[in-house]
Amino acid sequence: MTPMQLALLEARAAALRGEVPVGAVLTDASGAVIAAAGNRVEALADPTAHAEMLVLRAARERLGGKFLPGCTLTVTLEPCPLCAAALALFRIERVVFGAYDPKSGGIEHGPRIFQHPTCHHRPEVIGGVEERASMALLREFFAERRDPANSAER
Amino acid sequence: MTPMQLALLEARAAALRGEVPVGAVLTDASGAVIAAAGNRVEALADPTAHAEMLVLRAARERLGGKFLPGCTLTVTLEPCPLCAAALALFRIERVVFGAYDPKSGGIEHGPRIFQHPTCHHRPEVIGGVEERASMALLREFFAERRDPANSAER
Repeated sequence: MTPMQLALLEARAAALRGEVPVGAVLTDASGAVIAAAGNRVEALADPTAHAEMLVLRAARERLGGKFLPGCTLTVTLEPCPLCAAALALFRIERVVFGAYDPKSGGIEHGPRIFQHPTCHHRPEVIGGVEERASMALLREFFAERRDPANSAER
Repeated sequence: MTPMQLALLEARAAALRGEVPVGAVLTDASGAVIAAAGNRVEALADPTAHAEMLVLRAARERLGGKFLPGCTLTVTLEPCPLCAAALALFRIERVVFGAYDPKSGGIEHGPRIFQHPTCHHRPEVIGGVEERASMALLREFFAERRDPANSAER
């Protein structure tokens, strides 16, 4: 199973819990999975409990260091500004994401976190990986809630 | 004591622990202090353990809700992009900060988090409150470490 396939499983599990379906996986330089999580904003009543933040925190605890050099963060949706800024602070080497998020994304949209001289670490970015599968999950989730306009807000 | 004076005390306490001296305080609509913290990046070995993030998390736990409406976040240094994005997600009403941070700030510098249509909540921003006292703490801290060029990196 690829990291993105695992991230999609986490996103599906999040949807079953009533969370916006976004999943994330952190792998180290050898490709080993260090942490995986789905969005838990509702469960934790915490608007920052995005899948990426949970995975970064879990990986840091597991690996013990202050940073996560050489690691890749794979996530089903373009990270928001909060998560993009956290990826830079943790010195993540590479970000792979599924669907682009014109409404709330922070890498290719909005504040474009990595594209400023004040960003002290810029991960490599690969977007659009298994984009359709990720979008399908989000569309299905919001269609059931009859609010497709909010399709990318967690 | 004003919230900024309390935030400055937290910043001084952080410096004594060997942390970059930044302190933050969260007050509710009545002005009551809900949480106060200094930077704990080194103590927690977590590059996201900025004073603002610690205060937001503590306040959310104390108040119980998912958001912090009507609350004011007072911090001695202009928040970075991570913290600015978190302030928007928590729907903070007002941000009061001390020193401006041209190197790592995310409100008046860099990605200017609140100035994009994709930012779904924009707190009122008041910068430069007790700016000199905050800058003096940061300068003293970095002068002791002989690396004034990094004066605003936590």
